[in-house]
Amino acid sequence: MTSGAVGGREAALSPDAGRTLRGVVWAPDVCAARFGDPANRWDPEVEVTMALPSERSNDTLLPDLPGGPLCAFRARASFSWRQLALFLESESELRLKKAIFSTLENDPLFARPCGGDLSMEKYRELSFLRYRRIFEYDFLSMQNMLTSPLQMSTFISCLGMYDWSLATKFFLSVLTFGSAIYSSGSKRHLKYILQLLSMEIFGCFALTELSHGSNTKAIRTTAHYDPATEEFIIHSPDFEAAKFWIGNLGKTATHALVFAQLCMPGGQCHGLHAFVVQIRDPKTLLPMPGVMVGDLGKKLGQNGLDNGFAMFHKVRIPRQDLLNRTGDVTPEGTYVTPFKQWRLLPYLAAAYALDHFSKSLFVDMAEFYRDVLKKNWSARQAELGREIHALTSAGKPLASWTAQRGIQECREACGGHGYLAMNRLGNLRDDNDPNCTYEGDNNVLLQQTSNYLLGLWARQGQGGARFESPLKTVNFLEASSDILGRRFEGPSGGGCLDSSVPLAAYEWLVCYLLQESHQKLDQEKRSGKNDFDARNNCQVYYCRSLALAFLELTVVRRFHAYTHQPSVPPSLRAVLGRLSALYALWSLSQHTALLYRGGYFSGEQAGKMIENAILDLCSQLKDDAVALVDVIAPPDFVLDSPIGRADGQLYRNLWSGVLQQSQVLERASWWAEVSTNKSVVGSRKAKL
Amino acid sequence: MTSGAVGGREAALSPDAGRTLRGVVWAPDVCAARFGDPANRWDPEVEVTMALPSERSNDTLLPDLPGGPLCAFRARASFSWRQLALFLESESELRLKKAIFSTLENDPLFARPCGGDLSMEKYRELSFLRYRRIFEYDFLSMQNMLTSPLQMSTFISCLGMYDWSLATKFFLSVLTFGSAIYSSGSKRHLKYILQLLSMEIFGCFALTELSHGSNTKAIRTTAHYDPATEEFIIHSPDFEAAKFWIGNLGKTATHALVFAQLCMPGGQCHGLHAFVVQIRDPKTLLPMPGVMVGDLGKKLGQNGLDNGFAMFHKVRIPRQDLLNRTGDVTPEGTYVTPFKQWRLLPYLAAAYALDHFSKSLFVDMAEFYRDVLKKNWSARQAELGREIHALTSAGKPLASWTAQRGIQECREACGGHGYLAMNRLGNLRDDNDPNCTYEGDNNVLLQQTSNYLLGLWARQGQGGARFESPLKTVNFLEASSDILGRRFEGPSGGGCLDSSVPLAAYEWLVCYLLQESHQKLDQEKRSGKNDFDARNNCQVYYCRSLALAFLELTVVRRFHAYTHQPSVPPSLRAVLGRLSALYALWSLSQHTALLYRGGYFSGEQAGKMIENAILDLCSQLKDDAVALVDVIAPPDFVLDSPIGRADGQLYRNLWSGVLQQSQVLERASWWAEVSTNKSVVGSRKAKL
Repeated sequence: MTSGAVGGREAALSPDAGRTLRGVVWAPDVCAARFGDPANRWDPEVEVTMALPSERSNDTLLPDLPGGPLCAFRARASFSWRQLALFLESESELRLKKAIFSTLENDPLFARPCGGDLSMEKYRELSFLRYRRIFEYDFLSMQNMLTSPLQMSTFISCLGMYDWSLATKFFLSVLTFGSAIYSSGSKRHLKYILQLLSMEIFGCFALTELSHGSNTKAIRTTAHYDPATEEFIIHSPDFEAAKFWIGNLGKTATHALVFAQLCMPGGQCHGLHAFVVQIRDPKTLLPMPGVMVGDLGKKLGQNGLDNGFAMFHKVRIPRQDLLNRTGDVTPEGTYVTPFKQWRLLPYLAAAYALDHFSKSLFVDMAEFYRDVLKKNWSARQAELGREIHALTSAGKPLASWTAQRGIQECREACGGHGYLAMNRLGNLRDDNDPNCTYEGDNNVLLQQTSNYLLGLWARQGQGGARFESPLKTVNFLEASSDILGRRFEGPSGGGCLDSSVPLAAYEWLVCYLLQESHQKLDQEKRSGKNDFDARNNCQVYYCRSLALAFLELTVVRRFHAYTHQPSVPPSLRAVLGRLSALYALWSLSQHTALLYRGGYFSGEQAGKMIENAILDLCSQLKDDAVALVDVIAPPDFVLDSPIGRADGQLYRNLWSGVLQQSQVLERASWWAEVSTNKSVVGSRKAKL
Repeated sequence: MTSGAVGGREAALSPDAGRTLRGVVWAPDVCAARFGDPANRWDPEVEVTMALPSERSNDTLLPDLPGGPLCAFRARASFSWRQLALFLESESELRLKKAIFSTLENDPLFARPCGGDLSMEKYRELSFLRYRRIFEYDFLSMQNMLTSPLQMSTFISCLGMYDWSLATKFFLSVLTFGSAIYSSGSKRHLKYILQLLSMEIFGCFALTELSHGSNTKAIRTTAHYDPATEEFIIHSPDFEAAKFWIGNLGKTATHALVFAQLCMPGGQCHGLHAFVVQIRDPKTLLPMPGVMVGDLGKKLGQNGLDNGFAMFHKVRIPRQDLLNRTGDVTPEGTYVTPFKQWRLLPYLAAAYALDHFSKSLFVDMAEFYRDVLKKNWSARQAELGREIHALTSAGKPLASWTAQRGIQECREACGGHGYLAMNRLGNLRDDNDPNCTYEGDNNVLLQQTSNYLLGLWARQGQGGARFESPLKTVNFLEASSDILGRRFEGPSGGGCLDSSVPLAAYEWLVCYLLQESHQKLDQEKRSGKNDFDARNNCQVYYCRSLALAFLELTVVRRFHAYTHQPSVPPSLRAVLGRLSALYALWSLSQHTALLYRGGYFSGEQAGKMIENAILDLCSQLKDDAVALVDVIAPPDFVLDSPIGRADGQLYRNLWSGVLQQSQVLERASWWAEVSTNKSVVGSRKAKL
């Protein structure tokens, strides 16, 4: 059932994002309707008077939205939002939603923290208190959950929209742990269900281990059967087999569904089975003998959920606590991706190519500024200023987006471990993020570059001026009519493992996009649009691609020249040539649709040749990957990431990092809330 | 000069990301070399003995990397990493890097916080202390910075790799503020440069205002000239004209370069000019009369930098503090994107389509589990289990990636305001992020779906079994040979504003990818690869696209059926039809290259028709956008985002949010460090 809720989670998140659209899209209009302009002030009394006469039956369920600058936009809609809401969801779901949301809003325990951040400890305590309060409200009985899947999905989505830590905490204990036991179908496990639903115990689902995630065959925790005592002995052979990433295990779980390899006295192994193992004493919340259990520490998000780890030292459990039928196992937690060079190598090549571009442009700029200070105001100097502006305006978007995608790819390739705050992929991402917007949103900046190119193109069309710029980045346009006539022929020697093939393709692409953008702009203007609207309408599919393609061409050209100059030591030529070709082909492959559309590519082979060349280059660079990283990586002290240290001992470093955190094995300061201050299911139901 | 450093920033970030690759790629190998296996243990004494004989001259500059499991991989490299490092950078740059990194590493002030987070206040204090310490080390004289741009770029990159907050803090004060004054070229401003370089004053660059960013014409701060006193009167007309997002202004800046519209007594306006305005008293760090200055609060990242706001109430400054030449203004800070529906509307459509898919699949799953509990183990039930597994395995990747991209798009569309923690786009992103990896990395999950389809395809090829599944998602494959013969013809009525056109294209696409993936897999296996390697090699360009295309087809088909059923109220048909078509066409447009490559599309018109249809649909949905968000948005209490509130008063809500934070206008608790505990530039230089 987990995956369905995951789908629900995404769907629920998207509306959140959509709500933001409400804020974004109309910004200039809201801005025009300035605060202080009485015509735009919302008068609550007028609103009430106007709302009263319309006694629509659904007004209570779906009350009017607040007045304000959005009213005018709401009035433009082609449909009634109440009607659509009722079409999408039944009245009973809408009622459940309303009940949950208004209950949470009116309960001070669910007040959003005002100013300042919650400490992790406090946030985890709050999540537990809220988990308990959810039981007290008893929004949906277990019976209802099973008979009405949509109600359950609505219930989890509502909790999640409020806080996904809380929803996950509830889901993992009650639904994942609970339903696994329930579906084992044995009466002897019924006691656990009853204890779970009365909050006497708290559950978690312990499959994932430190050094392997989804691969259930690789799970190394063992459960040896001892026929003498009719017990299983649960054991973790070493720290890499520690259960890791388990939600609720960090601070609250008293019982875990532990997945282990079942071994019989004769030595036969019967594969993975699930066992109910007591982790903590519900009275004291201290660990049971033989169990080492702790909290993984801060994550990039969902910090209200206590993800934890546990190692077992020959922990004995009664035979009955083997679940005799576990149903389909869907793994949860971390996953370390198998060897997949293609995923990160292009970003490594991009790091080299963009670093070279950035440095060479920096030198150009410094020369430009030196002349400014010398009060050189020649025509060439002005032209150089425009050219540099065009290059930096597209350079920031290209570099910041490449970094953003590269960091996210690394983060995902590291699985759960990339989500742990101590590994600092979150810091890299968050610190890079403002580059996408400051000094102007990336899309706005790209328009500066396309305007520069379109200006040159128009000038040339009118007066036949030569394409010539101080840094020579646009000189190739002089041959645009020849270039536009070119077609991809494939390389002569089979395979296109050299950057000259993508360079030729990029020249065609820029000419094509320039011609197309010019025509589109012309057409928009002739249809009566003003300059601003015309340019905006050309942006999405024309000018934006034009600016990026032009910059990529320039980066590829500079890196090609750099890696093919005579001064490159012979022993470095092969590796640098491959980096140059990989970056060029990989960037180009993002434009394959345009290359086909414009007729530069035709037939299946062209596209396949590029893809095969990328894979071949990745495979050729595979053995050089670590050394290429060594060359440009900052020292360990600067990187400060256990999984990224130069010694490569990632699991050992990660394990040390986890254990070095403060209070990692300590009982939560709010343990008494879990064990002593008991509360009654449904005790607040009357207040709904 | 700012943009060049930005390029440098990205390039510097990518290596960080690259370093992580070191951790990721080799995971299985490191895992194989288990801790505890003596053959893989690194013996430091052996390492020392081995390193001694090789007395290479660059060993001091580029010392050996630590031993460990990566040694074997390093030995495989085709080149010497030392040689490449020396080719990429000159020895003097490498020496500067080494000096900076080892100095920081040996200075306890730069120790990374061990366990637990720094409070924002503490982090900002540390950043200031480190900023001061950088002056004491005097790594690079101002003269050096100007004469050797690469050294300056290296210097900023090194600081940035350590902490971009610190690099930005330094850059904004010394380089942006300093060089703007320097390039004004007047001797009368030399005093500011000298004070800046001796740390008597701290600068910031105050262009951006709350409700407009890069658009310099829209700046509303005024500077009225008073000839009687020979002063300018700096004034903020209202809160929307407050200087906003200014780095260093929050807590530390004593002086700001304020951009304002210059107005003469006669009423003439001379446009935007820059003025040096004193913000705080350097002795007490309290604001100057008429200046309201405060800290913006927590951001998603770079919290060591104090971004702030300021409003001026008729602040008088001497005539001389108008900069007579400001050079090119490059705006910094926030930017609110103009009206660009195409950017977010497809995500709104995706929220509707994926929400419907998720709910409908949840119902299917609940039925499946109900039968499991009834111990129904029929062949159909088993087949249903496989089909649901295939759908959920691709559903999580599609939904989590769509949410991730949508949230990031919203965050960027909101400019700087999206980067402010209180607006909670960071929370949405961080809470969604684990969905990309838990229960298995998205790429691994997609393989489950493609394996399901390839299995069916092989079965059919061998025995001619029918394509038939309980949820009917694969039944269309029965007609695969017909479908593969189809070509895009364009819709009959001109325009393809209906989901039936993309539905037909998707059917072709899935058949094509299935056939191609099958052939590729076959080919890989025949070349002698084992099953695991063969599948991995087919993943990138074949199976991954196959799984996503199959799921998108299923989502599109279900949403098409849902929005076109007879029970849809007539007044909702148009808007739902548009949402369905937009989601379908937008998703399909990501596969345009494949549609061309396989010959389904040919000629320029096919691709353009899809793009035009997407733009047309966005334009048709424009007026419905706010109402569509209203229908699915959670209440304000749940969303808890000032810029996303239902009342649409985004600037007013944002301003309130900023002012409601604790200690927003208060002097930093560590103010004496700035004003009293003075320190001497270069005082620690000897220790380098």
